[in-house]
Amino acid sequence: MTDTQIHAAFYRGDRRFDVAQKPAPAPGPGQVALRIAFCGICGTDMHVFHGNMDARVGFERIIGHEMSGTVEALGAGVEGFTKGQKVVVRPLDHCGDCPACDAGHTHICHNLKFLGLDTDGAMQEVWNVPAHTLHALPDDMRLDHAALIEPVAVACHDVRMADLTAGEDVVVIGGGPIGVLVAMVAREAGGKVVISEVNENRLAIAADMGFDVVNPAKSDLVAEIGNRTGGKGADVVFEVSGSQPGVDAMTDVAATRGRICMVAIHAKKPQVDMFRFFWRELQLIGARVYEAADYDKAIALVASGAIAADKVITDVSPLAEIQRAFEQLDASPTALKSLIKVGA
Amino acid sequence: MTDTQIHAAFYRGDRRFDVAQKPAPAPGPGQVALRIAFCGICGTDMHVFHGNMDARVGFERIIGHEMSGTVEALGAGVEGFTKGQKVVVRPLDHCGDCPACDAGHTHICHNLKFLGLDTDGAMQEVWNVPAHTLHALPDDMRLDHAALIEPVAVACHDVRMADLTAGEDVVVIGGGPIGVLVAMVAREAGGKVVISEVNENRLAIAADMGFDVVNPAKSDLVAEIGNRTGGKGADVVFEVSGSQPGVDAMTDVAATRGRICMVAIHAKKPQVDMFRFFWRELQLIGARVYEAADYDKAIALVASGAIAADKVITDVSPLAEIQRAFEQLDASPTALKSLIKVGA
Ligand SMILES: [Zn+2]
Ligand SMILES: [Zn+2]
Ligand SMILES: [Zn+2]
Ligand SMILES: [Zn+2]
Repeated sequence: MTDTQIHAAFYRGDRRFDVAQKPAPAPGPGQVALRIAFCGICGTDMHVFHGNMDARVGFERIIGHEMSGTVEALGAGVEGFTKGQKVVVRPLDHCGDCPACDAGHTHICHNLKFLGLDTDGAMQEVWNVPAHTLHALPDDMRLDHAALIEPVAVACHDVRMADLTAGEDVVVIGGGPIGVLVAMVAREAGGKVVISEVNENRLAIAADMGFDVVNPAKSDLVAEIGNRTGGKGADVVFEVSGSQPGVDAMTDVAATRGRICMVAIHAKKPQVDMFRFFWRELQLIGARVYEAADYDKAIALVASGAIAADKVITDVSPLAEIQRAFEQLDASPTALKSLIKVGA
Repeated sequence: MTDTQIHAAFYRGDRRFDVAQKPAPAPGPGQVALRIAFCGICGTDMHVFHGNMDARVGFERIIGHEMSGTVEALGAGVEGFTKGQKVVVRPLDHCGDCPACDAGHTHICHNLKFLGLDTDGAMQEVWNVPAHTLHALPDDMRLDHAALIEPVAVACHDVRMADLTAGEDVVVIGGGPIGVLVAMVAREAGGKVVISEVNENRLAIAADMGFDVVNPAKSDLVAEIGNRTGGKGADVVFEVSGSQPGVDAMTDVAATRGRICMVAIHAKKPQVDMFRFFWRELQLIGARVYEAADYDKAIALVASGAIAADKVITDVSPLAEIQRAFEQLDASPTALKSLIKVGA
């Protein structure tokens, strides 16, 4: 007896994916086999494509984690799911035995395995995952929209960690895919949101989504935010740019006692205005991935239409064309979220 | 009729104080005249001495704010104090009409006047201050010890802002006068405190105060803290050093979700490990001066003996010798807090 053959995209290094057939093993104990519908291309996936994560992922890896799908089969000991049920995966597998896990912060476990990077991921027709990673979806949810739940959950975590409350003035520094999702979640939480972004194409998209926008290369962001807030500044700032100018702006636009949420990955240590943190009693809050509550919130937001899914999803390509999809996304000045349609 | 003549120390620039006589005006409406007993020399006062704050203080200024004294006379409209009563001043005068004041954060008012820098201070025999700045002391409190209440209140504010709870692992980076006071307040709050300091004289003083100490120039601070905490790291870190190595260490020693309290004044923007903030969901909390509750706590701690006042106070000099006292403090490798005995 042989396993069923499925299609999968293998990262081969040097900006290449191979789409090939592989056997689909039955789900092991505690696992669930999922039939993948859609899988979004994450900024992290683009890092893999660029060769920046070769040491971590190797050249046999099936990547992908921003997925939606349906339950295909249950492994031994798994209950509570039914075949055909719509689900998404919270792609975190923790060790259960480190100081972070001991303290209940399993999402930032010191030995965290990120599914789709440290293990094979969702760019394959059938994906076996630990049952504890699953979140059930409403029956009527569109599965293309559901592929946004993972990045929306990132934004929900950021907004929750920043403790944003209704009526607060918010600046989102950086208007890329994560920035606009943070802005949407912050707006839904009652924040008065301004997006700061230097790329005019992205600015236009953000404006089209109904956001007030500022190009800090063309006008004085601090003065603009001061004018809007009676000189107070932003109660909450999200640093999503990953740039030195973004880090400079985050302290300059923050109100006294303002909270700055660090969303971006800064590979280099930027210079940070520590005096301003002291002088204005600012707070900086690091926020990484998500917890179960953030997934619950993200599912509710996508279901409610609070996320402008059709504006965020700017491309959908079949799995067979994953190579072109990555190349186009990499080259596009206007693309936000590209999905791969993995299933038939 | 002429005003009483009193002695006062005037900062004249170029590392010089003149002690001279001046008239003591009666307290104005809402003011209280205090007879000053002791006034400590703050790090900020040493900055004045070094000429770094000439633009702010000028060359007619009587500085000093870490004081103790007794009520001498009440201005019109002041009630609730009696002549001879022991008091300290919380030397902050806020505007009442800025975004920080509007939000209730009057201690970091955007137009804050710091008494003894922006106005004349306590290095004079009689000092008139707004009545709202006074805190009454227990009758039996020693007035030399009471001169520590202002810097102890800084430490109380830091510990409160860091939300330190009993049993938490604490690292204080920098073992100078503020560092040891932060350590004492953190210890009193139930923290398990380690002081990191490169100056061996200061290390010896901190050890003599009963603290565990590490010299990060001689041993691996991160490994030491790891060993003590089962690999977890410090729940709370106080950055008091104002140095780039201190800023490097603060993120390295912090536990996942650790809180880092920024106590030091960083005149230059240091490089900060923003990736670590993201990766371990660290928090940075700026903390400046104090609020009324911090003064109440500081008074209670000095009264209880939780602050080792006799070890912290390393010199007491009469007002006439203020010049020598500043010069000696500036040159000493072991001095912590020098007091000026202002009264007769
Ligand atoms: Zn992602
Ligand atoms: Zn773990
Ligand atoms: Zn002081
Ligand atoms: Zn004010």
